[in-house]
Amino acid sequence: MDIAVCHGRIVLVGDASHVLIGPETAVVDVTGRYLCPGLIDSHMHVESTMVDLPCFAAGVLPQGTTTICPDIHELTNVLGMKAVDLFYQSARQLPLKVLIAMPVCVPALPGMEDAGAAVTPDLVRKAYESGRVFLQGEQMNFPGVIYGNEDVHQTIAAGMASGKVLTGHYASTDLNAGLNAYIASGITADHETTTSKGADARAMRGMYVQQRYGSAWLDLPQLVESITLDPGGDTRFYTLVTDDVTAATIVTEGHLVRVVRKAIQLGINPITALQMATINPAQMLEASRWIGSLTPGRAADILVVDNLTQFTISRVYCDGVQVALDDQLSHPVSGFVYPEWALNTVHLDLLTPLDFQIIAPSNGPVQVRVIQLVPDRVNTLLKTATLEPRNRCVNADPGQDLAKAGVFYRHSPNGTADKSRGLGFVSGTGFLAGTAYASTVSHDCHNLLVVGTDDAAMALAANTLIESHGGLAVVMENRVLAHLPLPLGGIMGLSSMETTAQGVQKIEKALSRIGCPHKSFEMTLSLLGLVVLGELHLSNRGLVALQEGQPPRFVDLILDS
Amino acid sequence: MDIAVCHGRIVLVGDASHVLIGPETAVVDVTGRYLCPGLIDSHMHVESTMVDLPCFAAGVLPQGTTTICPDIHELTNVLGMKAVDLFYQSARQLPLKVLIAMPVCVPALPGMEDAGAAVTPDLVRKAYESGRVFLQGEQMNFPGVIYGNEDVHQTIAAGMASGKVLTGHYASTDLNAGLNAYIASGITADHETTTSKGADARAMRGMYVQQRYGSAWLDLPQLVESITLDPGGDTRFYTLVTDDVTAATIVTEGHLVRVVRKAIQLGINPITALQMATINPAQMLEASRWIGSLTPGRAADILVVDNLTQFTISRVYCDGVQVALDDQLSHPVSGFVYPEWALNTVHLDLLTPLDFQIIAPSNGPVQVRVIQLVPDRVNTLLKTATLEPRNRCVNADPGQDLAKAGVFYRHSPNGTADKSRGLGFVSGTGFLAGTAYASTVSHDCHNLLVVGTDDAAMALAANTLIESHGGLAVVMENRVLAHLPLPLGGIMGLSSMETTAQGVQKIEKALSRIGCPHKSFEMTLSLLGLVVLGELHLSNRGLVALQEGQPPRFVDLILDS
Repeated sequence: MDIAVCHGRIVLVGDASHVLIGPETAVVDVTGRYLCPGLIDSHMHVESTMVDLPCFAAGVLPQGTTTICPDIHELTNVLGMKAVDLFYQSARQLPLKVLIAMPVCVPALPGMEDAGAAVTPDLVRKAYESGRVFLQGEQMNFPGVIYGNEDVHQTIAAGMASGKVLTGHYASTDLNAGLNAYIASGITADHETTTSKGADARAMRGMYVQQRYGSAWLDLPQLVESITLDPGGDTRFYTLVTDDVTAATIVTEGHLVRVVRKAIQLGINPITALQMATINPAQMLEASRWIGSLTPGRAADILVVDNLTQFTISRVYCDGVQVALDDQLSHPVSGFVYPEWALNTVHLDLLTPLDFQIIAPSNGPVQVRVIQLVPDRVNTLLKTATLEPRNRCVNADPGQDLAKAGVFYRHSPNGTADKSRGLGFVSGTGFLAGTAYASTVSHDCHNLLVVGTDDAAMALAANTLIESHGGLAVVMENRVLAHLPLPLGGIMGLSSMETTAQGVQKIEKALSRIGCPHKSFEMTLSLLGLVVLGELHLSNRGLVALQEGQPPRFVDLILDS
Repeated sequence: MDIAVCHGRIVLVGDASHVLIGPETAVVDVTGRYLCPGLIDSHMHVESTMVDLPCFAAGVLPQGTTTICPDIHELTNVLGMKAVDLFYQSARQLPLKVLIAMPVCVPALPGMEDAGAAVTPDLVRKAYESGRVFLQGEQMNFPGVIYGNEDVHQTIAAGMASGKVLTGHYASTDLNAGLNAYIASGITADHETTTSKGADARAMRGMYVQQRYGSAWLDLPQLVESITLDPGGDTRFYTLVTDDVTAATIVTEGHLVRVVRKAIQLGINPITALQMATINPAQMLEASRWIGSLTPGRAADILVVDNLTQFTISRVYCDGVQVALDDQLSHPVSGFVYPEWALNTVHLDLLTPLDFQIIAPSNGPVQVRVIQLVPDRVNTLLKTATLEPRNRCVNADPGQDLAKAGVFYRHSPNGTADKSRGLGFVSGTGFLAGTAYASTVSHDCHNLLVVGTDDAAMALAANTLIESHGGLAVVMENRVLAHLPLPLGGIMGLSSMETTAQGVQKIEKALSRIGCPHKSFEMTLSLLGLVVLGELHLSNRGLVALQEGQPPRFVDLILDS
């Protein structure tokens, strides 16, 4: 079987012996190998890798990812609609196809947190008019969808009017009334199911199941029974996505190819697994006339695969141009020069230990609400604990595995949220006495998050980031153990995937040195401020509790005695 | 399992016990039955039924057809772009979803025939801007696609720029270079394959196989091995279509439901067969967020099916409204009042026997080219025959089964084509001496076609139609045996499906009386003028030969001796 390519498109699949071979025609003999369409990641956040788009492309192209649908709500939380422009501009010269998903939940929970911008239905409409975004990003406000929030439905209406495919984030376990209402709104894809029952419930209702296998949220093994236990079943509504993966995962295990391999390992037929990363997402995106199959008229995004079960890729073509050979980039990927405003986004005066002080109503023991972290899970648990104030100050208690946490608004020095902060307690870090961790990667508002067992250490960690325009930092005994600067919006660096992976590794080693027993704990911590998740989270406005069947609400840190 | 419907859309699939049942809520108990999505016919011509759109809807809704994609090139050949407006307006009040396919080949072969209008790329573009058409109709000029005809590619470009799905008509047996080029142009659906090999070749190249089972072109049984011999294969690119069915077929056997039943009889799993008439065409049309499945957010086009294998339908809902119960329409379908110009389209003065005279160069025997009809096939064969002129006139010879044929331009009394006509000989009719058949249903230009064994009989048949503004007529021994008036564009009547079927039946009985041994022969004759088909056809400009690998060309009726 031959494939002929012209002007970046496949023009023939069959016998090309009649095709004129001119001096500029490249003939590649791939006898004995497999040719597959390039992989399509229909839901992901580039920001999770902490590298910028060109470095991301350079990292994932050799692994066969040729199309991504980045929901850029992280950078948009920092930069507003300018983030869409930055992504659009930085994607233009890339071989990687970047189908931008318009972020529609910025901030995730208006009224309960403050980001650098707010995306209104009107801005969404304007973005569609600009022609720079391809689909509608994840609608995280599922209660707003179900209970008829006006703004949420105006945003959905804007997407429908523009013919956009709408994607979801339905993080509830209600698979009847709630799920039906959510799908009935017009949202036809979702990556939040963590059970095969949830996958079944979605697919049978015409919602694409975006089976997630990220660095930390490893849902795929729990989902595949929806397919493997139903051998004759129709799998066209199943796709594979990464959602959030780190640079380290991409460097050591691979990007979407890792998910395809995992699916095969889990017992899914290799062809079916491949469909879930090619034709199925292409149909989901209503883009199958362009991408997702090796057929005439489609983009010549072609992988040469040596072994279908191991899914080892030896060559990658984008629009007919070879971009990678034997795991190495073989085509230049040009970097992007960012404007100063994109690299200077941590607008905070230096902090002092006093900024972390929590005052008790009296000097007796106090009961406090505690965010119980659960490693490798996105949700937290709402717990309580008893602490003994010292001089009316309620401090962290490493003995009980209780650290203090602070979230500081950092976006605009002029906004009404300036100087706002939330303080609380966190359990499950394992942090030793005198240690702290700080990060400006703190979903979704990306305010400055500081977690530690000592107010001075917390101030040092925070100030390290304020001075370097954002990033991650670990402090122990008044010393910065590790520091990864992330100047682009305070959430992404300008280094390669490998360098960034090493930087994160240093952070993780430092986290381990300060007592944390868990892997990739910086990812778990980065969700401490994600107030749309259950059960307890911390925003710059305070503690937010979210419990099944109830709207989110602010709760006091210290319980009434 | 419950289905809840609101405002014409499905809002819940699952357990509706929590749903409020108000005084205006209809509760329908269908325990023990199956619920299926309404059937979608993604390629068809309403004109083939000879009934107008409201009567068509009234006929097919009780049979479960809820969406059609009419390629209205027949009426457009007569009325030009006004046909699009007529269809759009007459569809507006119907429960049937009418997704108009923009006809792009009017006339089918410019320069070799004359229709009532010519559709240019610019008119196609304007139609897309009007928002009145949903997809691009069949591109019949496949040589034009393959060999780079400028107008053809401008039309394709117009469709792509508007995001339309482009449909095809690839009637060649070249499954390599030609088929690849055709698909590479961007056309992603085709109904012209007559072999399972052709079906395989299309589906594997990302082209939807629109498996046809019309009244006369019975391709489906020849195609299904593409599916039945590959039990685990992916069938998402296979659909079922009717293309051309008569009112009689619909009345006696059913519309698309007949094709679904046939597919099941041929060994296709009922669920797969149903997918080929629901979700598959919906995905092909990139309309699966609206139609094609019983899932939340989609139109409540629902069939209650009593028996899945027999596929017996007892109720039909369109947008949540019951339109049919037990094979009977249960919801009014309003008719449409047509303007006078749509009902008066046969612009011809009365003919005389002299209009059919063919003069020989000398009085000796002449060799003539003959159109050999093949019953139940769309193609003809190019044959030759020897005839003895009488007084230099070359006449039909019923003894050799040679009838005379004439095609008379009938559209505009002012056009350059006025008074143009083509004459020829036809074999395979079986017509007795002194008989004739006339029709203004003559694909695709719908000029006045007359076939007969006697010039006077031919004139009488022709004049019967000129006086009644078009239709079908059969003449024997100077008497009109049967006459079906079709005043709408000269190709459709204003009667119900049943009445029209009876009218056609009378024509068929009359055809049988005048000697024709074949069933539904009026359909075979209606393609006598379709010059895009091989091997020999007759237009108002003369005989057109089309042979494999050659462009179409005019040929002389009488061969040089």
